[in-house]
Amino acid sequence: MRITVAQLAEQIGAELVGDGSGQINAVGTVEAADENAITFITGSRYIPGLEKSRARAVIVAKCIEDLAKPQLIVKNVNAALIEALNVFAPKLKAASEGIDPTAKIGQNVKIAKGVAAGPGVVIDDGAELGENTVIANGCKIGENSKVGKNCRLDSNVVVYHNCIIGNNVDKQANSTVGSTGFGYSFIDGTHRLIPHNGGVLIEDFVEIGANCCIDRAKFGNTIIGAGTKIDNLVQIAHNVVIGKRCLIAGQVGIAGSSKLGDGVVLAGGAGVADNIEIGDGTMVGARSLVFRNVAAKQQVLGMPATDKSRALRIIGLTERLPKMVEQLRELSTRIERLEAAKNDKR
Amino acid sequence: MRITVAQLAEQIGAELVGDGSGQINAVGTVEAADENAITFITGSRYIPGLEKSRARAVIVAKCIEDLAKPQLIVKNVNAALIEALNVFAPKLKAASEGIDPTAKIGQNVKIAKGVAAGPGVVIDDGAELGENTVIANGCKIGENSKVGKNCRLDSNVVVYHNCIIGNNVDKQANSTVGSTGFGYSFIDGTHRLIPHNGGVLIEDFVEIGANCCIDRAKFGNTIIGAGTKIDNLVQIAHNVVIGKRCLIAGQVGIAGSSKLGDGVVLAGGAGVADNIEIGDGTMVGARSLVFRNVAAKQQVLGMPATDKSRALRIIGLTERLPKMVEQLRELSTRIERLEAAKNDKR
Amino acid sequence: MRITVAQLAEQIGAELVGDGSGQINAVGTVEAADENAITFITGSRYIPGLEKSRARAVIVAKCIEDLAKPQLIVKNVNAALIEALNVFAPKLKAASEGIDPTAKIGQNVKIAKGVAAGPGVVIDDGAELGENTVIANGCKIGENSKVGKNCRLDSNVVVYHNCIIGNNVDKQANSTVGSTGFGYSFIDGTHRLIPHNGGVLIEDFVEIGANCCIDRAKFGNTIIGAGTKIDNLVQIAHNVVIGKRCLIAGQVGIAGSSKLGDGVVLAGGAGVADNIEIGDGTMVGARSLVFRNVAAKQQVLGMPATDKSRALRIIGLTERLPKMVEQLRELSTRIERLEAAKNDKR
Repeated sequence: MRITVAQLAEQIGAELVGDGSGQINAVGTVEAADENAITFITGSRYIPGLEKSRARAVIVAKCIEDLAKPQLIVKNVNAALIEALNVFAPKLKAASEGIDPTAKIGQNVKIAKGVAAGPGVVIDDGAELGENTVIANGCKIGENSKVGKNCRLDSNVVVYHNCIIGNNVDKQANSTVGSTGFGYSFIDGTHRLIPHNGGVLIEDFVEIGANCCIDRAKFGNTIIGAGTKIDNLVQIAHNVVIGKRCLIAGQVGIAGSSKLGDGVVLAGGAGVADNIEIGDGTMVGARSLVFRNVAAKQQVLGMPATDKSRALRIIGLTERLPKMVEQLRELSTRIERLEAAKNDKR
Repeated sequence: MRITVAQLAEQIGAELVGDGSGQINAVGTVEAADENAITFITGSRYIPGLEKSRARAVIVAKCIEDLAKPQLIVKNVNAALIEALNVFAPKLKAASEGIDPTAKIGQNVKIAKGVAAGPGVVIDDGAELGENTVIANGCKIGENSKVGKNCRLDSNVVVYHNCIIGNNVDKQANSTVGSTGFGYSFIDGTHRLIPHNGGVLIEDFVEIGANCCIDRAKFGNTIIGAGTKIDNLVQIAHNVVIGKRCLIAGQVGIAGSSKLGDGVVLAGGAGVADNIEIGDGTMVGARSLVFRNVAAKQQVLGMPATDKSRALRIIGLTERLPKMVEQLRELSTRIERLEAAKNDKR
Repeated sequence: MRITVAQLAEQIGAELVGDGSGQINAVGTVEAADENAITFITGSRYIPGLEKSRARAVIVAKCIEDLAKPQLIVKNVNAALIEALNVFAPKLKAASEGIDPTAKIGQNVKIAKGVAAGPGVVIDDGAELGENTVIANGCKIGENSKVGKNCRLDSNVVVYHNCIIGNNVDKQANSTVGSTGFGYSFIDGTHRLIPHNGGVLIEDFVEIGANCCIDRAKFGNTIIGAGTKIDNLVQIAHNVVIGKRCLIAGQVGIAGSSKLGDGVVLAGGAGVADNIEIGDGTMVGARSLVFRNVAAKQQVLGMPATDKSRALRIIGLTERLPKMVEQLRELSTRIERLEAAKNDKR
């Protein structure tokens, strides 16, 4: 895929300043882009780097004076970048080849038009698949589960029974949805599993990374709100409720029955204890552990997580502990001297 | 599935107090249950909530006076809850449909009666599957591995060669058992893998969550004791030995050759360093890291893990560090004043 | 497999001291080896244990005087141990049975001789598989991806499109390579995925554990350098670059665009924030979190990670906080007494 700078400008609706005749076939960072690539900057502090870049052209929000490169002026660089990347994205084969003969389709299954299912797929009794949904090889859709339209389940994704997945949901490879939660009662000397009669409800436009686990509920549903995005290796326990448009980064773990509001961000490796509530728009720092409820629009950090600026202060002070010990010793010496002077006078 | 309150009382062996003619089809929490559901309480502090609940009836250990709801009196609410949930559990299709034609069965494989194996399953040479064991689509059972009776391996579970799995063992989707451990020797400038000639031994009634990894041993076996339950995304390294009836919560990691006694509880995200021993009945708090051996019946917490009450005290004091810095400054000022007074007198 | 001690000595090129006629069929640790096994020690501090061991013979670097066991003297015990373990390794069936009839091979796929592909495998258009590479059941190789010679992809490994895997690379079960990274722009009230046009490049002799995730790059490649070994449940985000011969232990997480030099060691559960650089040969302790760049040949520990000896000091002082609080109180009392004395004199 090779087009001119002018053609890209037209395709992404940018204003072209400079020569649009150069050929490009990729988008790259300022450092890595070569003369076959267009680059982009999201702020004026990147201009010095841009001037040294070998990139053929640049996407910017405001025209840069005297720049020796063609510029594509756009309102929102991040949005234009997504458009440009889509222009050059590898053209993958559309997956609408129907149901592989080795797939095993149960009874009373409803399969809408445009659905594809790869080798070794199992669709159990009563399941429903919406239009144009693609189920890659090795996946399983359990009894009576419903997957909406335009979904993409990559290889070996497993959805257990009685789960409901909305439209435009993507799940990457080797993820598990609807496994039984970790709920036991200790009775007569053994741990007895509490039956998990609930399910999982995943709303529209949710994206789930690779090798994630989302457990089914004991009662009702574990819920992932519309537009929420989940990274890889994330653990979401039974009866967790996640709001809309949250970002859950890699290796996060959320324990049973906790509730996240809308727009919550959990950075990489963060943990949330069970039965916790986190308000709308709150951000939890990397590897932090939330043990107490957090109100809306907070930034918290640490283990246990606390207000971010306070947490940073505590981390700083912890690192100064050797100094504090010295200070204590010094004060003690000075007090001794004062005490000695006092006793001398007696 | 719709039955009367009286029918449920009979099925779970409860004493019915009040009107048993109402119809129910589910069990729910006090907050979520509606008039079609029965609820339960495990202590008198939940009575106020129960009075407001829309639930049709309640399972309790002791009759509540003047309650405007039918009551099912039982000896153990947790045990009765499991019974009741089982009554209303979704009726899933029994999986005994034999061996799918796309499954690949090796030589000298022993398959007992009632065994089911789904599409794409591979059972390698010399493997054995006990009665009524169900191997879902995409699973693999390696050479000479043995799986006992009444086991359930969900989709895409992989068991490598020479592993032994007892009876009534459940493994949820996408879990891996018997992968080679992370043991290398640095020789002539490269890391050379130490062959792992050992295996994995999983005893009866063990349950393993989704996307877990249990590595095979270098020598002997990695062992999971009878009745132990393991949550999702747990890493168990080579030669680890876990006792009976342990609870290992989500995202726990146990490094090589560590040994857990019976009844040990590791909360979510806890870690155990290599070659550590943890005594019977000890509980390790969430995200704690065990670096030193821990005796039996301890509660430990923190990073590194230490006695829980001490750990909580240290966490509290760490959060008070800003105050300690202030105190240090104040003491220093007062000492300065005393020193100045002393010098004035000279 | 049963041979004499003398035969083993010959096979691993060891000098035999003592009687070589005993029969052995395994290698075991000093504690666990019985009379059918040979053991090994890597230092003289293990001699007392060795004397009590039931092992038939021992592999050592230096002849031990008066030992009542045959000794196999070698230059490098670790290297000899690997040789000996290989002699007794279970003999697994070679996997060169060609392409299973249920595998689905796309167009323009290049499959070299000796390649095996199991049931349910999908090889998409334009993919290439090098000589003697074994692709187990349930794997997927995406469009235009290339896998080199002598590779082993265990069951259910997924490699997305446009990834390049070198020679002699092993990937254990249920791992995912080339999933889309976690990169979103918040535009008009929703998180929009940034297309990841890049790929993953895995160099020769890399070994990857079970249930790992390696995301594809936004631009260019996520890179794993030659000879690097990765344990289970590891998360490697988009555009990460890992040098040669690194060791990445279980449950490590490395965030986007971070760069590791050669020979870096990340212990179990360590985390690296995004856009961090770690120099050659640096070691990061278990569960540590690297938030700042680290130079070459450092040992760091803690959360945030800092110089190891300093971190241990800080951990020690944190544990002494209760004592520091006492000291503060005591100093305060002494100051009060001094102040009272001063006031008395007025």
